Amino acid sequence: MKPRTSNPEPIPHLYTVIMAGGSGTRFWPLSRHLYPKQLLKIMGEETMIQQTMRRALRCTPPGRVLISTTPAQADSIRVQLGEWKDSLKDNYILEPEARNTAPAIALAATEALQRDPDAVMLMVPADHVIHKDGRFDAAVRLGTVLAGKGYLVTFGVPPSRPETGYGYIQPNRQRKLAGQGKLAGYAVKRFVEKPDEATAARYLKDGHYYWNSGIFIWRAATVLEEIARHQPGLAKGMKAIASRGPVRTVQGKAADIYRTLTPISIDNGVMERSSRAAMIPVDFRWSDVGNWSSLEEVSPRDKAGNVVSGNVIDIGSRNSILYADRRVVATIGLEDMVVVDTPDATLICPKTKSQDVKKIVGILKQQGAPEHLEHRTVVRPWGSYTVLEEGPGYKVKRVTVNPGGRLSLQLHHQRSEHWVVIAGTARVTCGARRFDLQVGESTGIPRETKHRLENQGKIPLHIIEVQDGPYLGEDDIVRYQDDYGRGERR
Amino acid sequence: MKPRTSNPEPIPHLYTVIMAGGSGTRFWPLSRHLYPKQLLKIMGEETMIQQTMRRALRCTPPGRVLISTTPAQADSIRVQLGEWKDSLKDNYILEPEARNTAPAIALAATEALQRDPDAVMLMVPADHVIHKDGRFDAAVRLGTVLAGKGYLVTFGVPPSRPETGYGYIQPNRQRKLAGQGKLAGYAVKRFVEKPDEATAARYLKDGHYYWNSGIFIWRAATVLEEIARHQPGLAKGMKAIASRGPVRTVQGKAADIYRTLTPISIDNGVMERSSRAAMIPVDFRWSDVGNWSSLEEVSPRDKAGNVVSGNVIDIGSRNSILYADRRVVATIGLEDMVVVDTPDATLICPKTKSQDVKKIVGILKQQGAPEHLEHRTVVRPWGSYTVLEEGPGYKVKRVTVNPGGRLSLQLHHQRSEHWVVIAGTARVTCGARRFDLQVGESTGIPRETKHRLENQGKIPLHIIEVQDGPYLGEDDIVRYQDDYGRGERR
Repeated sequence: MKPRTSNPEPIPHLYTVIMAGGSGTRFWPLSRHLYPKQLLKIMGEETMIQQTMRRALRCTPPGRVLISTTPAQADSIRVQLGEWKDSLKDNYILEPEARNTAPAIALAATEALQRDPDAVMLMVPADHVIHKDGRFDAAVRLGTVLAGKGYLVTFGVPPSRPETGYGYIQPNRQRKLAGQGKLAGYAVKRFVEKPDEATAARYLKDGHYYWNSGIFIWRAATVLEEIARHQPGLAKGMKAIASRGPVRTVQGKAADIYRTLTPISIDNGVMERSSRAAMIPVDFRWSDVGNWSSLEEVSPRDKAGNVVSGNVIDIGSRNSILYADRRVVATIGLEDMVVVDTPDATLICPKTKSQDVKKIVGILKQQGAPEHLEHRTVVRPWGSYTVLEEGPGYKVKRVTVNPGGRLSLQLHHQRSEHWVVIAGTARVTCGARRFDLQVGESTGIPRETKHRLENQGKIPLHIIEVQDGPYLGEDDIVRYQDDYGRGERR
Repeated sequence: MKPRTSNPEPIPHLYTVIMAGGSGTRFWPLSRHLYPKQLLKIMGEETMIQQTMRRALRCTPPGRVLISTTPAQADSIRVQLGEWKDSLKDNYILEPEARNTAPAIALAATEALQRDPDAVMLMVPADHVIHKDGRFDAAVRLGTVLAGKGYLVTFGVPPSRPETGYGYIQPNRQRKLAGQGKLAGYAVKRFVEKPDEATAARYLKDGHYYWNSGIFIWRAATVLEEIARHQPGLAKGMKAIASRGPVRTVQGKAADIYRTLTPISIDNGVMERSSRAAMIPVDFRWSDVGNWSSLEEVSPRDKAGNVVSGNVIDIGSRNSILYADRRVVATIGLEDMVVVDTPDATLICPKTKSQDVKKIVGILKQQGAPEHLEHRTVVRPWGSYTVLEEGPGYKVKRVTVNPGGRLSLQLHHQRSEHWVVIAGTARVTCGARRFDLQVGESTGIPRETKHRLENQGKIPLHIIEVQDGPYLGEDDIVRYQDDYGRGERR
């Protein structure tokens, strides 16, 4: 949600690192491997990473927000954070490969330390929901005080149910480290792995255990020291990587080194072993929206307890999550069910089984089914395309080019293309010719012909593209010039 | 299923009337108003009406099969019964409007009597499942004996569960009218309306009640006499209709008369009132497949009791009906549920609620949603088309033209069209020009231009058609010549 008031003062030396490397299996079919949860509008009018960005701006100017992600997701994130594109231009830290959180954090800390020897880092996952941004601010401000004293600070969320899906933190109430108003920070007595149900119930009753939110604050120098102490292999690898060039875009040999790093989480690898861990019990509502059934914690429900979105026609369902798009989804008398519909895949399960969605994704992956990987609509820096139909020897797409956007100057060996303009004006380059097409006009692009599509107008350009040829993969593309620095993908 | 052996001898004077006027609400979203259950492959490789046709051929030659249906469904039925198109050419009896079964039967009886004063009619719904065709034959043969004696014969099915969705028949065991082997026919003691659960349970236990299958055998002359006796208004109307021309295609004034006939079922209107009703307890398995949950009576189930079809990925569901097409449908841990997926609509409900599907159809109808009316794929006499996408000012279709098929010579006032051939060869007429398009070639058809698409080849022609214009309804069409005698629809 856009804030009505201006942001509070930025916190000196604070960098907010948005951790956006999630793989998106648990919100399938709405999330995909290449389109994870942070890119979705799970609640509200903005996507989760947009909401996270706005929250970051309450503590840091946009130029001090770093985005930690993978190259495959960077295009989509750049599009979603386009409002701040100038400030964020050099702030993407691209992991060559996902190796869990500890290596990603080491990379981000190295970058932050190069920018500012006194850098303090607020680590926020891109896909969490936080209510009451003001209370979040206050906790961050107290966190930076503790970070300044050399602590690795985490936010502990008071549990509201016997959740077995989270780790827990027990603070040492005898060791209060700092306080500010009602908020206080404590030394950590111990971290606890995800408990079984009986233990979770005991923690809830006990009142001295908190959910580990995965939000951290620390000095870049401190976390690197603690990584060196508890994960010396990682520290050594990171030094070798940093010696070979900028850590924002790890490439070549350095990328090879990154790929050999032990994939370990910051919790297991550092926090649980460090004597410098601290925790602030926070007072804002938080959810990691970890699976479909958790949606009801953060979304408005109707009188019958349903969370309903999209073209749903329901008769008498109760306490269910009914999530549709434009297709008709008709439901009758469901109880405690999850139904999620997308253009190419539908999920139906009881809420109690929603954590098993990742098994479905595993099966699809094993089958090589595209439905685990990406949506029928794929975002590109110049706009997007939607596959309307694929069949033997042909593919039909709707292609949208944003005003000012243009695809690379390119050529296909295996396919010819036909373009029909259905909205806007297309500037077409085809071989030596250059011409404009208006709505209702069309042209053909023969194979082996250099061509380019661009939108020099003020409104989006929409075309229907019919491809035909023996091979129609996205990788049959030779790029001659590209505005977005891409060599491989269209 | 295609019979392995040749058919038995036809029964002299017997006409089989396939009643194919169903409206298709109960199998939504697989059935649609314009694509009812008889057109679906509910089980096996052939559609229900194709299976019904094969069964009819065991008793009657194809030239003595009459199809009672509506003009809206006749195109699709003609396509499905294309194997017998020469024999059936003059055998479609088109109701101007559905007025329940009594008027439709009066129309068919009038037609049959005109063809043969001694005509005996076997009335079979187009969308019932019957196992053991041989036993069906035997019952029909005994039925014709009873019909010859002046009875209105029905088939009674021994109940296997306390079904509340069917009417019941109690035969008079003291009045055996005829017998053949183990089969016998009895006078009817009484017809009973759909009972409540307790009554249905009592009927099941009693053993003297049978399900009313809706299959009848009678002489055309007899049923018209009984209609005249018990529904004199209908008889009078039918005489007026017959005096105005052929009853196969009731038109003009005659159609107006038909539309004023009281819509009453043959059961309520005649059978329950007649003293000439007889019943044969049959020994074949029968189902009217009246709703989704009844599918499990007639379809094979997997070890977990599921009926599964199409691209379903399931983890641990039991006793459920999971019906998909090409889209991915992922189900986890469902119990006693119905899930039916089609390209534009999905249904999810417990089996116990599957009779409420008609309420969903009612809501869609009220909303004017096209999903109650027809599929995204629409069958035409020349082939079919599938709407891939519709948006403001444009529509994208895949059009399939069968070998030898051609669309009408036509013109659109409001839209231009672009055709790209993706399989086969298109013979195109556009204004004064005539030319062929091969795979990968395309052409544009400007608005207000006479044009025609035809397939003179041996394999199906597939094109992608992109339409653009301010109005894209199917009714913006002016036809100049049509191979299929159509004036209004494309």
